Formats: sequence, structure tokens, C-alpha cells
Amino acid sequence: MKKSLGAKTIVHPTPVFVIGSYDAEDRPNMMAAAWTGICCSDPPCMGVSLRAATYTHGNIVRNQAFTVNVPSVSQAPQADYVGIYSGKDTEKFGETGLTPVKSDLVKAPYVEEFGLVAECKVIQTIEIGLHTQFIGQILDVKANEETLDSQGRPDLTALQPFVFSPADGTYYEVGESLGRAFSIGKREE
Amino acid sequence: MKKSLGAKTIVHPTPVFVIGSYDAEDRPNMMAAAWTGICCSDPPCMGVSLRAATYTHGNIVRNQAFTVNVPSVSQAPQADYVGIYSGKDTEKFGETGLTPVKSDLVKAPYVEEFGLVAECKVIQTIEIGLHTQFIGQILDVKANEETLDSQGRPDLTALQPFVFSPADGTYYEVGESLGRAFSIGKREE
Repeated sequence: MKKSLGAKTIVHPTPVFVIGSYDAEDRPNMMAAAWTGICCSDPPCMGVSLRAATYTHGNIVRNQAFTVNVPSVSQAPQADYVGIYSGKDTEKFGETGLTPVKSDLVKAPYVEEFGLVAECKVIQTIEIGLHTQFIGQILDVKANEETLDSQGRPDLTALQPFVFSPADGTYYEVGESLGRAFSIGKREE
Repeated sequence: MKKSLGAKTIVHPTPVFVIGSYDAEDRPNMMAAAWTGICCSDPPCMGVSLRAATYTHGNIVRNQAFTVNVPSVSQAPQADYVGIYSGKDTEKFGETGLTPVKSDLVKAPYVEEFGLVAECKVIQTIEIGLHTQFIGQILDVKANEETLDSQGRPDLTALQPFVFSPADGTYYEVGESLGRAFSIGKREE
């Protein structure tokens, strides 16, 4: 028997990604976003939902591009910082000591120090309500060498990303492996 | 200096949620889905992206409703099972020993044994490419008592959800708290 909690966005976990964009003066900006995720395999796409009031929202509308950067546990304070303050009145790269790199593929910067990034061009803009969802086609994924495994694939245990619980407003580490998908649930033959 | 990995859906982590739906004969079905997440705060919404080839896709088109169920670490084999086999030829509730409960709010079943569920009615259907994204308005969130904290909020450490890495096809536990959001990154005053 379940207890009703009301119509709220309290399903967990969510990812913690940092969205890179350029403003009208081509200054690099970034913000933390948890209402995000992969939303299509072909073309490969990610959806990022933002309030129109955010500085990043206007930047994406203008440039039709963004990057999705994945911070590590050790970078959680920086990711939190860019989720608290607005690029309207803050030079977030300068303040955090992070380095913006101009994408060759889209008009958006990515974060050199964050281990994994997807460069996205907007292919659909969906007005849902308080949030607009930008659906961005992934043109490339780039990773820092130290976050790759021996086969050159992104290694979650090396990247050490973290997640968010909207119910209690807390970040959590990603922990131990539970086993392979499409495997641990297979019927015994 | 980052290494290019190509245009792929290999950004991690993603959530692992189980989508509940009824088929044309009103039989309850469920499938695992990682291309999901919260996508709007007001109205509260979740987006679920599915291939048209899935049994669940047709069910949601027909009923304009679904549930998003959050399995725990101990239920990972069951969640994986429902992501491997199709409801076209499998009675997944019977096979996994899980219990379907008819929602009072939408035409979809939820999973009694999974600790947290959002009941959603479809408000937008977005054709992206291989995947269709169903945007569902959350009409209620329900939780099993043992997954709530002392204040009655969903407690991630009690629920013990897990995440997925699409890069290596592996599930990972959610681990220790890293601190409060909108707090650990605050400037020193």
C-alpha cells in the first residue's frame, strides 16, 4: 500500500549536468541542470529543460546550441556554484577557475576540466510549461583521457559523476557496479 | 585536451526507471527505460523516450498514460528482465513475481514492490527520430512507507535506486551523500 505524496517532481535520482552556452556578447557561461537526459538514440539526442528566466535559456534560443558537461564528485562545489548564481551578473568561468573551450562543431563552450561533454545543436524546442525543453542532437562526445577505460570508452568509475535527489535537495555519489545490463535479468536457459 | 568519441548516446549516468502500461487487452506490462527524466516543474512532468517497436509505445499511444516506477538495487535483476523481454509474448508481472496495481488517476498500472512511482498522463508526444518522447504530467507520486524519511519525503538512501552507464552497459549503485544542493557551492560571505 503506497502513500500519496502529491503531484511533485520528486522522483530520484536525476543526473547533474552542466550546460555550456555563449551569451549575446559571446561570453562563455554555464549552469547546472538536473532536468536533463538522453532522449533519442538515432539521431543521438539529449533533452535539457530550462526555465525561460535563466540566462542560459536566452543563450540557447539565440545560438541554437549547447554543451552538456559531466562534472566529477571532486567538482561538485563548482557545479553547485554554477547552479546558484546567474551568468547575468557573474563570470562563472572566472569565479570557479574552470576553462571554457570553444566547440568546433556548435556555437557553445565546453568545460575543459569536466571529464565528459556532449556538443549539441538544437533540433526541437518544446514549450512544456514553466520549462522549455531544448532537444539537442549530439554532434560529438568528447572525454578527458583519464576518464576512459582501456578500450577508450567512457568509464563511469573513472569519471565519478554524481546524482541529485530533488526530494531532499542532496547530491549523492555513484557507487559500486551492480552488474551488466541485458544480462543480470536473463532467464536461465 | 579532450578525445573525440563520436556522435553517440554515451553520456552517463542515466536513471533506470520501469514504465508501467496496459495493453489492448488491459493486461499490465512494464519495461525498463533509461532515456527518461523530469522535464518540467510546473506542471510537473516526466519525459519517457521509447522506440515505436516497443510494446509499451503502442500501449501509451492507446491509453495516453504511463507510470514511472523506481526499482531498488535488490530489484535490479527484475528491472533488467523487463528491459530484455517484450510484453508481446511475455507476462512480465507473472514471470517476475511483481504485483500490478491499477492507478486511480490514469489508465496504467504501477508496481507495488517498487518503492516510488509517478502516475503520468500524456500531454505531449514528440517524434524525435528512432525514439518518440512522451511527456507525461505527473498527477501523483506515491511511495512505500519504508522508503520515506522521518518527514515523509522520499529518502534516496532508503529507496536505494540505481543508475545505468550507456557507455559500458553496466548498472551502478547510488552511494554516499556529497552534501546539499544550492549550498556546497555558495560563496563565502
